[in-house]
Amino acid sequence: MPGMDVRILPGVKQDHPADVMRGEETQIAGYLATHPGFDGVICLPGTHTKWVHVSAGEIVSFRTAMTGEMFALLSTQSVLRHSMGAGWDADSFAAGIDQAISKPEGLAAALFSLRAEGLLAGLNPDAARARLSGLLIGAELAAMRPYWLGQQVALIGAESLSRAYAEALALQSVPCHSAGVEDMTLAGLTAAWSQIYGEAA
Amino acid sequence: MPGMDVRILPGVKQDHPADVMRGEETQIAGYLATHPGFDGVICLPGTHTKWVHVSAGEIVSFRTAMTGEMFALLSTQSVLRHSMGAGWDADSFAAGIDQAISKPEGLAAALFSLRAEGLLAGLNPDAARARLSGLLIGAELAAMRPYWLGQQVALIGAESLSRAYAEALALQSVPCHSAGVEDMTLAGLTAAWSQIYGEAA
Repeated sequence: MPGMDVRILPGVKQDHPADVMRGEETQIAGYLATHPGFDGVICLPGTHTKWVHVSAGEIVSFRTAMTGEMFALLSTQSVLRHSMGAGWDADSFAAGIDQAISKPEGLAAALFSLRAEGLLAGLNPDAARARLSGLLIGAELAAMRPYWLGQQVALIGAESLSRAYAEALALQSVPCHSAGVEDMTLAGLTAAWSQIYGEAA
Repeated sequence: MPGMDVRILPGVKQDHPADVMRGEETQIAGYLATHPGFDGVICLPGTHTKWVHVSAGEIVSFRTAMTGEMFALLSTQSVLRHSMGAGWDADSFAAGIDQAISKPEGLAAALFSLRAEGLLAGLNPDAARARLSGLLIGAELAAMRPYWLGQQVALIGAESLSRAYAEALALQSVPCHSAGVEDMTLAGLTAAWSQIYGEAA
């Protein structure tokens, strides 16, 4: 509209290891605005989950895992879709987490077992879906161990997904606290506004 | 057609760990018919790659990895598709194999790097595709180590795919020899025919 003063907030890029984010940086800014002095690790679960080390008000390093996208592809488009229910089973999720963390090198063989156990052993479809999620989030935790080991983790994500990550991290004795995506996005946009126009604007 | 004597050859199932094959058993039978007394490991690369331990003319155990399907999903349907060429780069393939074998727990983080390096570091799209293949076949080799370690491996698969597996295994100092899918399928069907109707039929 004529007369509107439109700004676009930039994303963040990292050269080594190469990584990018676009949107999550605003949520991180929102978290820092609402938790002044926060120093530690923020995990933003989603299609492309981000793990972010924050210190002195800045992003020190971050890393992305395609866990959400992988789960969507495997559960709805791969041969595993025939074995998937729409429900959940907490014990199967925990078993998947445990399997992937304790034996990350076995992931490639563990996935097809979901299909084979569905055919041969009557694996419950909800249990299969929860174990697939556990295997993939577990593989992510195995890759991101330097981020969460011995840390407190702040989770910013959709409620049910954040709850799954909180459970997975609790199994590694990592305490978490959660913040809402919408709240953090608004707080981040507000913080950017204040920075651009000054607190009084 | 009236008067035809039609037979269907059964697949193979395994209870622990749960696994199934349907079609590969005929190629294995063909390999045994054309290599009498073979004792060792057969790998059948494909959408669902099978690793099979054969001894005394029987399948002792087998395991499936969904590597081909995973490669198809990630390279054509995930965010990584934007970074993929149609070509190949042997060094990048070898680098992916090495990365996945030496650090299998890092796979979840390694995948998105292909996208980020495409955006930030101008990663060549053919190199990206070859490294994705290397990461996934490397993750499979990490899972299937008990099958190939210290073995000779017989490969039965499409030529270009078998060549990729042979290269990956050569990097682990595992010698391979290849047999054609069509030859082994025909030999397996012929062997089944002979078993049902007798050599003289």
